[in-house]
Amino acid sequence: MSSGQAAIISFSAARVVFGAGASDETGEHLRQLGVTRALVVCDRFVTASGLGERLRTALREAGVDSVFYDRIVGEPSESSVHEAIEAAREGYDGFVGVGGGSALDTAKLCALFATHEGELLDYVNAPIGAGRPVPGPVLPVVALPTTAGTGSEVTTVAIVDFPRLGTKTGISHQHLRPSLAIVDPVLTVSCPPGVTASTGLDALLHALEAYTVSSYETRPRLPLAERPPYQGANPFSDPFCEHAIELVGRHLRAAVSDGDDVEARTGMALASTVAGIAFSGAGVHVPHALAYPIASLKHEWKPRGYGGAALVPHGFAVAVTAPAAFRFAADALPERCAAAARLLDGGSDLAASLGRLLEDVGAPTRLSEIGYGEADLPTLVRGALDQRRLLVGSPKQVGAAELEALLRESL
Amino acid sequence: MSSGQAAIISFSAARVVFGAGASDETGEHLRQLGVTRALVVCDRFVTASGLGERLRTALREAGVDSVFYDRIVGEPSESSVHEAIEAAREGYDGFVGVGGGSALDTAKLCALFATHEGELLDYVNAPIGAGRPVPGPVLPVVALPTTAGTGSEVTTVAIVDFPRLGTKTGISHQHLRPSLAIVDPVLTVSCPPGVTASTGLDALLHALEAYTVSSYETRPRLPLAERPPYQGANPFSDPFCEHAIELVGRHLRAAVSDGDDVEARTGMALASTVAGIAFSGAGVHVPHALAYPIASLKHEWKPRGYGGAALVPHGFAVAVTAPAAFRFAADALPERCAAAARLLDGGSDLAASLGRLLEDVGAPTRLSEIGYGEADLPTLVRGALDQRRLLVGSPKQVGAAELEALLRESL
Repeated sequence: MSSGQAAIISFSAARVVFGAGASDETGEHLRQLGVTRALVVCDRFVTASGLGERLRTALREAGVDSVFYDRIVGEPSESSVHEAIEAAREGYDGFVGVGGGSALDTAKLCALFATHEGELLDYVNAPIGAGRPVPGPVLPVVALPTTAGTGSEVTTVAIVDFPRLGTKTGISHQHLRPSLAIVDPVLTVSCPPGVTASTGLDALLHALEAYTVSSYETRPRLPLAERPPYQGANPFSDPFCEHAIELVGRHLRAAVSDGDDVEARTGMALASTVAGIAFSGAGVHVPHALAYPIASLKHEWKPRGYGGAALVPHGFAVAVTAPAAFRFAADALPERCAAAARLLDGGSDLAASLGRLLEDVGAPTRLSEIGYGEADLPTLVRGALDQRRLLVGSPKQVGAAELEALLRESL
Repeated sequence: MSSGQAAIISFSAARVVFGAGASDETGEHLRQLGVTRALVVCDRFVTASGLGERLRTALREAGVDSVFYDRIVGEPSESSVHEAIEAAREGYDGFVGVGGGSALDTAKLCALFATHEGELLDYVNAPIGAGRPVPGPVLPVVALPTTAGTGSEVTTVAIVDFPRLGTKTGISHQHLRPSLAIVDPVLTVSCPPGVTASTGLDALLHALEAYTVSSYETRPRLPLAERPPYQGANPFSDPFCEHAIELVGRHLRAAVSDGDDVEARTGMALASTVAGIAFSGAGVHVPHALAYPIASLKHEWKPRGYGGAALVPHGFAVAVTAPAAFRFAADALPERCAAAARLLDGGSDLAASLGRLLEDVGAPTRLSEIGYGEADLPTLVRGALDQRRLLVGSPKQVGAAELEALLRESL
């Protein structure tokens, strides 16, 4: 009971069930959670493939009624979320998200608004929304990721695009963490190489940024009610970061080059979940802050594996500046950066190790490849500066000049 | 959705709040958990020291009424638990355990029986009890450890001694995991050197055994309802085991030799909690199985720091055979044993590293020091063979002959 002033750390993790075939038990888990009628939030690939039917059967056999809401297309937007919320308020007592981060985030929001009153913007981070805290626990959410990257199955965050406001933001609250993450690596086998590469790099950057974000020991001690979810690198997140970095180094190339390599898929599914647990307590920093404007400013590039759509997938948007960002950070954290390189591929220079990995998995390595030029830098810098809650975690002071230099180096 | 037969792993962890001064916020956390009237389960040292009064004030300031039940003496027994349960059924809506494993385990049982009907033996592991599963969530329990070792603040277990049945056993169920562990290293500063050594070794052996217990990959895939809490070494427990082993190697000697070394106390408090999270999912094996009969058969030895009582403290009972147990296990798991030695003190032979640590912290290194001789071996072997749920985790097949050899080597 001292008045020592080091920040106090909170650690909490979603319940996770992990393993090939784990998704077969979804119905039993829902029943254990007391769910009798579930809305399953997914995209049309889930209902068109055998997966939807297998899940429906598993739920029925467990005595759980289900309705499939398969209208998830692209990332959650204000309008798509409104539509989903309307469906969610039709008398369900539990929600299942099946898919990438978009389906999982939408399922979290369905549970929020099926449980509590209010409008989307009431709960969205201020100043865009009213930043109202989620008033209490929400109906159970079970999350089944079909990509290995976002970690949404274990995080407290739901991200929403607000085109009319020209920005993406989200709701983050501990009550939004799914009741259960069912991580079945077999569900990721159908993920195309480009999506595997982008989501896998997202997982890696979650781990690398959470490992190098400024330490909790440098943060001010705040009253309980004012503590942010992103607390800085800490002794509960560090071991999971190291584990995730090593797993990506060992498995991502193989998962991209041979999607049927179940060992590689298993390693990446684990890496994604473990990195999700780590960054949801520690936070991320510069590469994620730069990724928001990089993904939203231009929609010109058509990556492979995304059905011909023009977009910069989130993982690529994060990774493209990562070599520059870690070159920049290396002198502030030489030991951590060297340790991360060693874990990733036995190297000693993290930026070089990252560069090799980007090449090998077919990721864009330059901003110019995805449509950006010198003239875009001021706009990108302004967008990144808006991500203050992430930039505070930078291991080195960053302002407009440093961000512009990182972007220029990445052109 | 394959029918792959590798075991499915569950990972879940208690919510933890960690840091010097964290206990000052106990009242606020109880209020957040909806508690209005709490029973605080502790021993007389807590109420006699300033800690009891500080907690009482913190709870009152948060609007939480409290009654202190300070009758915890020694380890929980059938009769002490009955008495505590009677007190717990007087209209509380939350429980706080403050102390070592005994106070924390008793608080868990108070919450169980204040929430659900039934008798102690209804829920105790079969065949001693009826092995009835805990029927549902229990009232909130907040756990504040004042020793760094048992990990009870994050585990699902409550251990009870049944003298009339000549055995110790317990109740283990996910609903018994505390709602919140508040780990304030400052609360361990008053812990005497002998207790610091014994509990610290318990934490180390939790980590070492969870790191070397037979892997989840070697376990059969069981239906959901039949899966044991102890699942074998797995990718969620391994990183926390490694972290805890390193922390004990770095901090235990200093915490024993200078109790006021807050850095060492902080390291050990963290090691204990992290090891608790790890072993509560992975399990422990031979040293813990041998420790039960070693602690219960003879009460002759009077360790320092235990107020003149004759007993073999649990941590010492676990550690005394550990060098022999890891010499035995080393050829089955050469890489893991070498990695553990490296993390512990930069060594390469885990049994030797353990032997050095036992010497340095003043722990008994031979069974003969604590009152055992050749004639006791058959009884000790029989007692250990009863711990089947632990022996299944041995990295090498063990039967009566192997256990006897390990005990003889430790004489």
